[in-house]
Amino acid sequence: MTTVLTQPSADSDVVIGTHTLKSRLIVGTGKYATFEQMQECLKISGADVITVAVRRERLVDADGRNILDFIDLDQYTILPNTAGCFTAEDAVRVAKLGREILRGLENPGADWVKLEVLGDTKTLLPDPVATIEACRQLVDDGFQVLCYTSDDPITARRLKEAGATSVMPAGSPIGSGQGILNPNNVRICMEYLKEDDPDYPVIVDAGVGTASDVAFAMELGCDGVLLNTAIASAANPHLMADAMRQACICGRQASLAGRIPKKLYATASSPIDGTITNGN
Amino acid sequence: MTTVLTQPSADSDVVIGTHTLKSRLIVGTGKYATFEQMQECLKISGADVITVAVRRERLVDADGRNILDFIDLDQYTILPNTAGCFTAEDAVRVAKLGREILRGLENPGADWVKLEVLGDTKTLLPDPVATIEACRQLVDDGFQVLCYTSDDPITARRLKEAGATSVMPAGSPIGSGQGILNPNNVRICMEYLKEDDPDYPVIVDAGVGTASDVAFAMELGCDGVLLNTAIASAANPHLMADAMRQACICGRQASLAGRIPKKLYATASSPIDGTITNGN
Amino acid sequence: MTTVLTQPSADSDVVIGTHTLKSRLIVGTGKYATFEQMQECLKISGADVITVAVRRERLVDADGRNILDFIDLDQYTILPNTAGCFTAEDAVRVAKLGREILRGLENPGADWVKLEVLGDTKTLLPDPVATIEACRQLVDDGFQVLCYTSDDPITARRLKEAGATSVMPAGSPIGSGQGILNPNNVRICMEYLKEDDPDYPVIVDAGVGTASDVAFAMELGCDGVLLNTAIASAANPHLMADAMRQACICGRQASLAGRIPKKLYATASSPIDGTITNGN
Amino acid sequence: MTTVLTQPSADSDVVIGTHTLKSRLIVGTGKYATFEQMQECLKISGADVITVAVRRERLVDADGRNILDFIDLDQYTILPNTAGCFTAEDAVRVAKLGREILRGLENPGADWVKLEVLGDTKTLLPDPVATIEACRQLVDDGFQVLCYTSDDPITARRLKEAGATSVMPAGSPIGSGQGILNPNNVRICMEYLKEDDPDYPVIVDAGVGTASDVAFAMELGCDGVLLNTAIASAANPHLMADAMRQACICGRQASLAGRIPKKLYATASSPIDGTITNGN
Repeated sequence: MTTVLTQPSADSDVVIGTHTLKSRLIVGTGKYATFEQMQECLKISGADVITVAVRRERLVDADGRNILDFIDLDQYTILPNTAGCFTAEDAVRVAKLGREILRGLENPGADWVKLEVLGDTKTLLPDPVATIEACRQLVDDGFQVLCYTSDDPITARRLKEAGATSVMPAGSPIGSGQGILNPNNVRICMEYLKEDDPDYPVIVDAGVGTASDVAFAMELGCDGVLLNTAIASAANPHLMADAMRQACICGRQASLAGRIPKKLYATASSPIDGTITNGN
Repeated sequence: MTTVLTQPSADSDVVIGTHTLKSRLIVGTGKYATFEQMQECLKISGADVITVAVRRERLVDADGRNILDFIDLDQYTILPNTAGCFTAEDAVRVAKLGREILRGLENPGADWVKLEVLGDTKTLLPDPVATIEACRQLVDDGFQVLCYTSDDPITARRLKEAGATSVMPAGSPIGSGQGILNPNNVRICMEYLKEDDPDYPVIVDAGVGTASDVAFAMELGCDGVLLNTAIASAANPHLMADAMRQACICGRQASLAGRIPKKLYATASSPIDGTITNGN
Repeated sequence: MTTVLTQPSADSDVVIGTHTLKSRLIVGTGKYATFEQMQECLKISGADVITVAVRRERLVDADGRNILDFIDLDQYTILPNTAGCFTAEDAVRVAKLGREILRGLENPGADWVKLEVLGDTKTLLPDPVATIEACRQLVDDGFQVLCYTSDDPITARRLKEAGATSVMPAGSPIGSGQGILNPNNVRICMEYLKEDDPDYPVIVDAGVGTASDVAFAMELGCDGVLLNTAIASAANPHLMADAMRQACICGRQASLAGRIPKKLYATASSPIDGTITNGN
Repeated sequence: MTTVLTQPSADSDVVIGTHTLKSRLIVGTGKYATFEQMQECLKISGADVITVAVRRERLVDADGRNILDFIDLDQYTILPNTAGCFTAEDAVRVAKLGREILRGLENPGADWVKLEVLGDTKTLLPDPVATIEACRQLVDDGFQVLCYTSDDPITARRLKEAGATSVMPAGSPIGSGQGILNPNNVRICMEYLKEDDPDYPVIVDAGVGTASDVAFAMELGCDGVLLNTAIASAANPHLMADAMRQACICGRQASLAGRIPKKLYATASSPIDGTITNGN
């Protein structure tokens, strides 16, 4: 406690499997106007883990340039992801491709993967059955699997049972910018995933649109936030990257600091409960 | 733009009457366990304006110690406030007392006041009629008046018409920790107050409970946030002070950065609108 | 209780001053495509009180037809309103005009008025100071005054102190269709207005868009709902009128029936409270 | 349209597989204080389909009385449900038991089942994988399957692909009384399920707490609502049963009537969208 009092910014690192992260913000690499803009925003975000889609068509741009050539592989741990995969088989294949590439590059990210198995091209919502199946196969194959999933608590639980190193519920659909639509589902996910295992990492992945969304996710007690579009598609990505960096830190701090309860007014005798009682 | 790109933290100062603030966070001095704890939290918050209740019974603690002796008057601009006043007359009297005290202390805060005229001891909600009346009198007397008020847009407008230097709508009742309960009223307040006068300062005062509330207030386009209980009554006030400091910065940045629109899903053809249409 | 059990639709009448209403839904007469459509919708709504704007330009249509000729004055009690007034003086004048007209028509609504003093033509939000002033004058003049106001609890209290027969907080701006944006303010309004006076009538006036909004208002413990645009501007006003009629009844019943508490899940040990606690 | 105008209460029946329902409200039979109370509430609710848990321990009470002896089987179509099942196998077994019982009783409900496969005794949330598997098996065995599921749109889609006659997303956890926590997920479920198939029945099952929740579900465009606890555990179940009956009707009407758009205020130029724009 003394440490915290004199150094308010101090916080424990977050541990995801064998990886230890200083920053609780993980950022993606898609949708930037240029690779140069991406490089700058990655740096500003303060992230030490960067997620990269490893399907060939996503790795290489129209001019044949490989995105990995624009990321400082000595500085960042790459978290390869299976974006663009719609079946367990495809996701497993792409995960292995990612491992191969990162081994070749001697990046420490070779041993983990962000698993996305999507159900639909329109909404980019995850497919629960295929995600659980792919998670099992990848765990069997030695991967540390970070699973993108809906906010459904039972699916979250099944993924942990399947061996997932981290479960990453969506706040709302990818790129939708709606933030966390159902905080109560995220709360139940954490009750499940952290029961008798308080350090199990839960990361909100997808849907955040702005800084307050990130802070709110952290205040719910999540261990981190993963985002991409909210920075890359902001009018000023550089400025939003800095906003997101700080939002993640301050939301974490607020979570640790123990906020005041919500009351109808300050002298109300009890915190607000959800009951709408008979007004008569 | 170039400046912003290379220095994402850069932002214009906020101007409130003759005062120029570097920090957009204004913090109060009540409810701390000790004056020492208050001192530390003020420093951590990064605020350069500190609001102090100048009624005698609030200025001096049980041991006869004066709160102003524990605030570095060379470093901070004091914003005297009329907390504890329930009539226009009392508020005007207390405002003048504050001016006298601060003149004696040669603090630049002698020329302004945070006007609070409360309607009720239980809820600490502001009294609109008495606030408008007190505002008029204080403006006539040469004060720069920052008016605490409800989120009612017409009252906000009347206060500006009465000469208020800044209008400060409550997000929710003082100390309630509920954040901004009615963002649409705050939006209308800003439409009114900033019409043909975009630099007119609008500050959310009261109700914020945690970091995401502060960030959200700034994302709405407010110019600053004033808070007290959320820090002073947090389990760890020091840590919460740092959270609030950053929340204010990152919310402001996110506001300037131009967030992505909210959509039902990323490929939806239009941003979410409020219409619940016939499902058939 | 026995009565309720065998006749679930039974409910006490609501008493507003000297008027006793069977229906808790009060409907307006503006914005209909034709007077005939209005007539049909009034009937379907089940209301026994109808509010009519009595400014001359609103009373008579482009063809010189008077709206009152299209309302069965033997069946309905007219609640004259001061829509379109922007000063206390004007509202008082129009209220007196309404009284005169209704006395001439021998309608029982001659002794009351729905007071609207608006602050702005754009938002149609009420002006708190002018409303309180006009209320005082009209009460002095013998009117039973039903005051349209914002959801600000202190203004609500001041209006009751000024002698208002009923206080009618807006759920959201007139015609905005947003429903009740700040239920907590409505809850505090009711705490104030019904303290030691549980039968004091509180009516949500303005902002409702659809049936669930009306039901929700009644579930909060309000005594009635006043609406116009939501029916008159619906694609099918007749059908919406019937929806609103039933929504008002079922919301009232749900309020009396004592709903189940909200919990995170059914076996959770306590109702949901508003505290976002540290997740660790 | 003419029909609707002159008879606002008229509505098409809802068709679920081979069953045609006059009432869009389906009610359960659990948690009542007595069978007699249940009988009365079923009648008041106006439902013509009643769902009954067919596991032996739920069918028979402590005194050995069978719940089916207290339901008028000539009046109601029974919808047997698999409440209390935690595996696909168990659910399939119980569904077959229900069919057998209802065939013996010559009730038309013998050919359908409400499938519940739960993931957890604490939250009673559905298990997506096991639900899809059980749905497939029951469809193969000739059942018309109404699937209780989370609000996850991809799981909803998979259930329809598996042959479900109706998909029934939860508004919130069973018995939680929270209403519809994530309307946007329900909207996407309907986009998926009704695409090129507008009459496919979507029914909100679980979580509703009060009348406005039911109305809101119908306003979203759902075809019906299934509930139990909200009536059975209300302080006055009879009165709540009547509230729910009307809430379902008026919500449906409001959906068909074409509500007004939501705007920041009535004269705002466009409906409210979800974008929080830069306030400067």
